Amino acid sequence: MRILILGGDGYLGWPTAMYFSRRDHTVAVVDNFLRRMMHAERGTDSLTPIRSLHERVQAWREVTGRTIEMHIGDIRDWYFISRVIREFQPDAIVHYGEIPSAPYSMIDVHHAVRVHENNVNGTLNVLWAMHEFAPQAHLIKLGTMGEYGTPNIDIPEGYFEVEYRGRKDVLPFPKQPGSFYHLTKVHDSHNIMFACKIWNLRATDLNQGVVYGIETEESNLDDRLLTRFDYDESFGTALNRFCVQAVAGIPLTVFGKGEQTRGYLNILDTLQCVELTALHPPEPGRMRVFNQWVETFSVLDLARAVRKAAREVGIEVKIAHYVNPRVEAEEHYYNPDHNELYHLGLKPHLLNDMLVEQVIKRVVQYRDRIIYHSIVPRIYWERGGTDEYVEIVEYEDNGA
Amino acid sequence: MRILILGGDGYLGWPTAMYFSRRDHTVAVVDNFLRRMMHAERGTDSLTPIRSLHERVQAWREVTGRTIEMHIGDIRDWYFISRVIREFQPDAIVHYGEIPSAPYSMIDVHHAVRVHENNVNGTLNVLWAMHEFAPQAHLIKLGTMGEYGTPNIDIPEGYFEVEYRGRKDVLPFPKQPGSFYHLTKVHDSHNIMFACKIWNLRATDLNQGVVYGIETEESNLDDRLLTRFDYDESFGTALNRFCVQAVAGIPLTVFGKGEQTRGYLNILDTLQCVELTALHPPEPGRMRVFNQWVETFSVLDLARAVRKAAREVGIEVKIAHYVNPRVEAEEHYYNPDHNELYHLGLKPHLLNDMLVEQVIKRVVQYRDRIIYHSIVPRIYWERGGTDEYVEIVEYEDNGA
Repeated sequence: MRILILGGDGYLGWPTAMYFSRRDHTVAVVDNFLRRMMHAERGTDSLTPIRSLHERVQAWREVTGRTIEMHIGDIRDWYFISRVIREFQPDAIVHYGEIPSAPYSMIDVHHAVRVHENNVNGTLNVLWAMHEFAPQAHLIKLGTMGEYGTPNIDIPEGYFEVEYRGRKDVLPFPKQPGSFYHLTKVHDSHNIMFACKIWNLRATDLNQGVVYGIETEESNLDDRLLTRFDYDESFGTALNRFCVQAVAGIPLTVFGKGEQTRGYLNILDTLQCVELTALHPPEPGRMRVFNQWVETFSVLDLARAVRKAAREVGIEVKIAHYVNPRVEAEEHYYNPDHNELYHLGLKPHLLNDMLVEQVIKRVVQYRDRIIYHSIVPRIYWERGGTDEYVEIVEYEDNGA
Repeated sequence: MRILILGGDGYLGWPTAMYFSRRDHTVAVVDNFLRRMMHAERGTDSLTPIRSLHERVQAWREVTGRTIEMHIGDIRDWYFISRVIREFQPDAIVHYGEIPSAPYSMIDVHHAVRVHENNVNGTLNVLWAMHEFAPQAHLIKLGTMGEYGTPNIDIPEGYFEVEYRGRKDVLPFPKQPGSFYHLTKVHDSHNIMFACKIWNLRATDLNQGVVYGIETEESNLDDRLLTRFDYDESFGTALNRFCVQAVAGIPLTVFGKGEQTRGYLNILDTLQCVELTALHPPEPGRMRVFNQWVETFSVLDLARAVRKAAREVGIEVKIAHYVNPRVEAEEHYYNPDHNELYHLGLKPHLLNDMLVEQVIKRVVQYRDRIIYHSIVPRIYWERGGTDEYVEIVEYEDNGA
């Protein structure tokens, strides 16, 4: 297949590019290095010393003899992205090309607007370009489980049958996202649903859980192929951030009670899910939705898993409950479906002590690169970006 | 009350400004004249020869002795709108300041993106400015009944209780809008809902039906106070457009079967609804939703009403079924609620022959100003803006 990966320089984009390339697909990546620029803005960086995209592509060729095509540009630029799609003629477009940070979108009005412009307008351009130049292509769009929020009922995969006042219909499941970033993904989903309907396009919306892990079979071929590993408050995901906090010797940042429960998955399962989705395209005309996650954990579960694994490698870790900078339910019902990708053949990797230890060892390897000011949050949902670190309310009993 | 009207130069914005001013409220209007510029772009214009905002405000002062404050600028400009909100300290912000056209948003990718940027980013600025500078203000946001689409179940006012797999919750009602313009209003609604929740703001989302009519008590005081009257394919609403087509002697443009049913209301009821909403602000913290319409009609119902009224003033009208340029259901269930505004005291004006005749007489008064190329649609949902007029499939039996 011809696979076009938007955001192909990113945490998931680059491993996805290598994964498809190694399996004999023709792969092109698009990136404008926005993530690298936003890190410069925030004074943060990937823990792993990642190479430039040019060096990565070169290293991949040296190691595997395979070529990944590279297009540097911004998907908000219609003339750029429409040309790439017209010329490359992808079978599938894997769309990671969005700003993925809730806190970043809450800093101030300018960041909220920027995230909207980047994500929503970029995806609009992709949809119109598909319509005009690649109407058979399959858009594989990364959404997030965070779009759903935490309703008091089960969360289906995108649609549900409703009985209301004696009549029935199958409707999109209502979304109650928790940040302006998550809102942009909801806007995308609505736009994609409409575009599929009026232009008879194919699309799958992957509502992904929180991804953890760093190593893939491909990245292990050569250290120059390592993907980025973010742990700062804007771009770090929970488990990755806790591992860095453990090594840095600061208390793990559990927000409030820590009973916030979310779906998680290993980066290896992201690759598997995206591949399964690409190999099984939907019929055109209706956006398909998969919930892409493997296990649910509370934040406290994860913090305890990190404390346990850290102890195995000789590091004592404290867990602390911080003032919650977000506006969210700290205790709630959570029971989302995730059947569709299993039906297609997903063989999940479950979280275990070995994996957490593996991540911690990688962090130890690069401990000199830890940027300390970025480990504790300073962005509040009510006050925006501040100079004040979120405060600790109490410590978790260390013997727990 | 201190009332700030965004889009105060528009079809509804200007009559709303006069309406509140005459009732002893302190009124300021904001506009960037985007509607006038978009008409220039499309080669179209208001049928009524409207004055500049400066002349209107001056005429209002001469006629009534009252002052309407005027702020010329773009709500997408944070420094402009945040200053206006900070300095004016509104009790209510009536937000008409959006591009309101489905066809305009479907012309091409640039128009789709422009409508997104204008509507979604503008509203984001308003929300942040309220949060920072006027947290007690009440946002009265004009949405549209078109956000809901045409589900096969009743449409509640914004929220509904769902029972699903044995559990219950009250959730936002799912939206299935029919154009990129309608999508921007859905995005706004999601953003406003979130802003109310995290910042404890007050907001009412008015999902308005299609507005018809032109004269209000205030505009009748002096012809310089007349509001705009759009009939072109981008900005004209159904009944208004049919009246112009009747006078222009071209067959009324019924798309497809013409069984598309929507909620409608007289411009006088828009004013009443907005006033009732302003006088009864909601509690902060949760976006309130009203469905703002009075009667439902099919497109064919309206066309027949215009044909009948036209005959009364001596004009014979043909009704034609055109190829439908939109992708939409031409026959569907439609039963939306509209109780809340009635509970607050709405006394509706029903559509009658007199009203249609009144509109037709106004059109006759300005018949020399009709721009003929803009009467028949050329913007298709599948193909975008074209040079080809939509074709007639068949004529309605004239004796019907």
